[in-house]
Amino acid sequence: MRFLSDNTASACPEILAAMAQVNHGRVPAYGEDEWSARLDRAFSDFFGREVRAFVVSTGTAANALALATLSPPYGAIFAHQEAHIVTDECGAPGFFTGGAQLVLLPGDHGRLAPESFRAALAAHPTSLHSVQAAVLSVTQATELGTVYHRRDLTHLAETAHERGLRVHMDGARFANAVAFLNCHPGDITWRSGIDVLSFGATKNGALAAEAVVFFEPALVKDFELHRKRAGHLLSKSRYAAVQLLTYLEGGLWLRNAERTNRLAHRIGHAAGDALLHPVEANEVFLRLGNERRAALRGAGFEFYDWGAEHRGEARFVVSWDQPEEEVQALCTALERLP
Amino acid sequence: MRFLSDNTASACPEILAAMAQVNHGRVPAYGEDEWSARLDRAFSDFFGREVRAFVVSTGTAANALALATLSPPYGAIFAHQEAHIVTDECGAPGFFTGGAQLVLLPGDHGRLAPESFRAALAAHPTSLHSVQAAVLSVTQATELGTVYHRRDLTHLAETAHERGLRVHMDGARFANAVAFLNCHPGDITWRSGIDVLSFGATKNGALAAEAVVFFEPALVKDFELHRKRAGHLLSKSRYAAVQLLTYLEGGLWLRNAERTNRLAHRIGHAAGDALLHPVEANEVFLRLGNERRAALRGAGFEFYDWGAEHRGEARFVVSWDQPEEEVQALCTALERLP
Amino acid sequence: MRFLSDNTASACPEILAAMAQVNHGRVPAYGEDEWSARLDRAFSDFFGREVRAFVVSTGTAANALALATLSPPYGAIFAHQEAHIVTDECGAPGFFTGGAQLVLLPGDHGRLAPESFRAALAAHPTSLHSVQAAVLSVTQATELGTVYHRRDLTHLAETAHERGLRVHMDGARFANAVAFLNCHPGDITWRSGIDVLSFGATKNGALAAEAVVFFEPALVKDFELHRKRAGHLLSKSRYAAVQLLTYLEGGLWLRNAERTNRLAHRIGHAAGDALLHPVEANEVFLRLGNERRAALRGAGFEFYDWGAEHRGEARFVVSWDQPEEEVQALCTALERLP
Amino acid sequence: MRFLSDNTASACPEILAAMAQVNHGRVPAYGEDEWSARLDRAFSDFFGREVRAFVVSTGTAANALALATLSPPYGAIFAHQEAHIVTDECGAPGFFTGGAQLVLLPGDHGRLAPESFRAALAAHPTSLHSVQAAVLSVTQATELGTVYHRRDLTHLAETAHERGLRVHMDGARFANAVAFLNCHPGDITWRSGIDVLSFGATKNGALAAEAVVFFEPALVKDFELHRKRAGHLLSKSRYAAVQLLTYLEGGLWLRNAERTNRLAHRIGHAAGDALLHPVEANEVFLRLGNERRAALRGAGFEFYDWGAEHRGEARFVVSWDQPEEEVQALCTALERLP
Repeated sequence: MRFLSDNTASACPEILAAMAQVNHGRVPAYGEDEWSARLDRAFSDFFGREVRAFVVSTGTAANALALATLSPPYGAIFAHQEAHIVTDECGAPGFFTGGAQLVLLPGDHGRLAPESFRAALAAHPTSLHSVQAAVLSVTQATELGTVYHRRDLTHLAETAHERGLRVHMDGARFANAVAFLNCHPGDITWRSGIDVLSFGATKNGALAAEAVVFFEPALVKDFELHRKRAGHLLSKSRYAAVQLLTYLEGGLWLRNAERTNRLAHRIGHAAGDALLHPVEANEVFLRLGNERRAALRGAGFEFYDWGAEHRGEARFVVSWDQPEEEVQALCTALERLP
Repeated sequence: MRFLSDNTASACPEILAAMAQVNHGRVPAYGEDEWSARLDRAFSDFFGREVRAFVVSTGTAANALALATLSPPYGAIFAHQEAHIVTDECGAPGFFTGGAQLVLLPGDHGRLAPESFRAALAAHPTSLHSVQAAVLSVTQATELGTVYHRRDLTHLAETAHERGLRVHMDGARFANAVAFLNCHPGDITWRSGIDVLSFGATKNGALAAEAVVFFEPALVKDFELHRKRAGHLLSKSRYAAVQLLTYLEGGLWLRNAERTNRLAHRIGHAAGDALLHPVEANEVFLRLGNERRAALRGAGFEFYDWGAEHRGEARFVVSWDQPEEEVQALCTALERLP
Repeated sequence: MRFLSDNTASACPEILAAMAQVNHGRVPAYGEDEWSARLDRAFSDFFGREVRAFVVSTGTAANALALATLSPPYGAIFAHQEAHIVTDECGAPGFFTGGAQLVLLPGDHGRLAPESFRAALAAHPTSLHSVQAAVLSVTQATELGTVYHRRDLTHLAETAHERGLRVHMDGARFANAVAFLNCHPGDITWRSGIDVLSFGATKNGALAAEAVVFFEPALVKDFELHRKRAGHLLSKSRYAAVQLLTYLEGGLWLRNAERTNRLAHRIGHAAGDALLHPVEANEVFLRLGNERRAALRGAGFEFYDWGAEHRGEARFVVSWDQPEEEVQALCTALERLP
Repeated sequence: MRFLSDNTASACPEILAAMAQVNHGRVPAYGEDEWSARLDRAFSDFFGREVRAFVVSTGTAANALALATLSPPYGAIFAHQEAHIVTDECGAPGFFTGGAQLVLLPGDHGRLAPESFRAALAAHPTSLHSVQAAVLSVTQATELGTVYHRRDLTHLAETAHERGLRVHMDGARFANAVAFLNCHPGDITWRSGIDVLSFGATKNGALAAEAVVFFEPALVKDFELHRKRAGHLLSKSRYAAVQLLTYLEGGLWLRNAERTNRLAHRIGHAAGDALLHPVEANEVFLRLGNERRAALRGAGFEFYDWGAEHRGEARFVVSWDQPEEEVQALCTALERLP
């Protein structure tokens, strides 16, 4: 029973069916097809504002291309020290931007505290001897399975904008955040001051499709050239576009996120005192120690150890296609742990 | 009737079916799945030699990642002046390598002449004031629809190797070249001295899958790190891997290539004197002038103009799923042109 | 007797004396000193227009920083195929710009012909699949010791500007060009449409000082940040600034250039039929063949072979401190050659 | 009375005199002159081991080129959070390496604690999803005017080497460290496990000359190509080389460092309780608050505020040419502060 990552999931049958449905005929390539042409509209409807949306195949590409569009090569990108762009993208932000520097900030439960960002930004030099404060990147839901409330996002974005920074949101699990907050997707993006969003779909049911969403058309600038020269403009673009359309238009995004949130919450509840962070998305972080981790693995559960070895922590992620019985089995096993 | 590009084609039903077949269960991500694990074996069997093969989503990614693995940032990459890496990748080689310089060479019908490469290499400085000769990149089939014979490849590669360069082959239409030469895939790659191949499948029937194939394991070096930091390591990697397996193992690659070659040849024949280059793959280049181009377009044929406007040239590409009747219609139309 | 390069020259005593004169006291660093503060004024007076001028230590730095300010990473930089940025800077333009691609053009005697640039630019694609035409870089005096006339510069710059390119001039031997044309420095720069100039002083008598001169303040953009992060902002900046001030204000630039032009011209005259290019600056290119080159070397003359070995060509450069007797000896030797 | 930085200092008369002495005749350029040829020997004698030494004009260039030679573009460079490469080089490490990521570590008084580096390294992931641990960079003397003892350097370097990292030392004030420790220059470099040193001379009396010193010839690799393409290979290289020779061979380095250390120590003593860090080099950090800073400025002392504004800290740096009376005046003023 695999709780390793929502990356291990399959693709929704609806997604594959939609891909099969467009699989006939010769249609313009490189984003000139009719499905790609509908992306702006679909995302504008979704967010309640005119946006520009571009598809790429991976979350790393979405993040790094967004950052390369927002930051000069001598830019400073502020992020939580556990952000995916910091720890899991093999330096993609540095590569795509041409050398921008990450400025790491701590924060409880994976969230940046507005005050600590304010202080860090105030302390960041403005002289030309230093990298220039350019972007704030926040992750929603965070890497520790928590969610930013609109108020905090607004505060963070205001602080950033006051000094001329742009605000990027890594939304690899964006749907889970919306599901948890039970809000409108616009509430925690453009209404909170987010400038650009990496909109994740792959983890939550797509096959390989993410979008970079610009809430301000002027910010698009040379995004398309960056995407092309990074090898991220797909030739047979219809198949990626139709994944996103299906994901958005059928309500798939919300249905899947609500389900995985609900199941993760159940696991968190079963874990009792072992729980490390509030369960606000589809991830559960537990302090188990070595024996209990071994016991669970012996019982057939797969999951990742998390953080420094001696802390004995573990991460469980619920995938959109996780059978309810597996979750039930995990809950039972957790409750029975000594 | 679209003859714009083989990028406009759909994906083979066999490919989509194979993707659907693996679409169940939670399996390891990021290339750790069982299908990705079979790629080395499948490509080794295909080429008749132990190789390492890595999947990416686009041809630009395959080329640029291969070049970044072979060339230092101060390297010189020799290529035909009409190569895809030169004209159609928005500077991806410069981006991925960190600044390597392209050295462009002319050559009839899209092919580099071994002697002219030898002369260019001999003239390239060796001092540290110049970029350092690092890679020769050849395209097979070429951008002008022609094919290198094994003898010429061998001669080019020997020249390159004598001076310590590595040899990359852009095989976006590799299958078409093999089909034309009726040879073993190993004959025009490792047996001719090719070190690394961008193996194309997307144009010839896959949905979005290309492979970078290393014929010498030591050359792989840090390829996987380059791929990861470029955002080209797919999380749900099973779907890309299974495309390649299906493409290779069922003989799809050859079947499709033989068909498009045959149809393109028919078009070339119908074009008579207008033909600019021998038709050895699935592309046909014609000198038509403005009136005849307009006439064809008026008759419902879509194709790209090619080269400088005043030359009046046009390119027709046959896709794997091109209906035979469309080809027949085009032939008839060409034969009737004044 | 060394005619290898004007890089082999010493520094003018006036330059060293000026450096000694500012060598006391603790003064602000990193360009905040009073001498650096005078550069804009001095260069504005020199060019007859308000300019911004920045000092760096090498010509490669001047060129590459200018290009990085003018070109995006996906830019195309048009240049003569023998330009220093193409052949002698180890890929610095690609490095500093983050991957821009050089587009090489031929041209007699080291000069770009306006018509051939116009044709190349017209043929350069505008789609996002290609690098984007961004900069034209011309060299004045050229790498083959010739000089552009104002009319040709104007024509080139107009063509570039029509399509939104910026025009950079590599003026490593700018003084020699002005001396040859007997014109105002403004005539062949901003009055001809040049946007940014790499103003050379080192070859012509400075110790290590070049300036990047922006004829349009808006173009400066983030030049200073590029310079800093490239390690080209000198801490004890007074010494570099005072070199340029001395070079400009005392007329040194013109005196030295007139002398080396005159002496080179004498050598070119003595060479008779062997002369390959008009001698319009301080360089002389001769076709000598192997025996005559060996004879001259046997007689104690040092010079570089030039171009492909079989062509038997040689380059002689006159340095500002070249003793007149050495030039006389060379002339005599050339005249006596069989 | 300027205590802003040792960058404000003039150059030693001996240095300028040596430059004047080589200022005659045409000599080979680009490091082929006889003085450049003596650098390896001079530095080998200085360090008591065969080394390779290369001159550049700035400390930022020395650091960034060293790091680009040691780290791949996907590398992680560990450094103290107040290191110059982190805070004062406008992202040069990211630029020169092609995107390497800085991993910042805290540490009292500007020093990295061996245990905390060990822990950070142990926690750094090894998977290809993360930047790869590549380099440890230490600063000697540190940015806070303290010095590493040989024991700690050895411990740090051993930890680094165990995991295959290379160790770089930013020695912008290296002479001050040697003077403080009263040790042999080899003791705190290669005998402690340092692989590459940025050897500073400019701050301590040179005009513009730093060396990159490789203690293991194999590590030089492609350093010279990196230097060239970064525009840091000086054409008239004799003047930079002779600065370093004079600096080393006449004992200037030690004489100047001993003097500035001694004077800084005196200031630190006068500051009493205000002293923030041990004075082990030529820098003094004081907690003064706003009123006392204003009082000192009113009395004619120039210095930089340091750190977050509310902390009220100040930095005083003694330059090699600082008049003893200025130091005396500062001591008196400090002693008289309320």
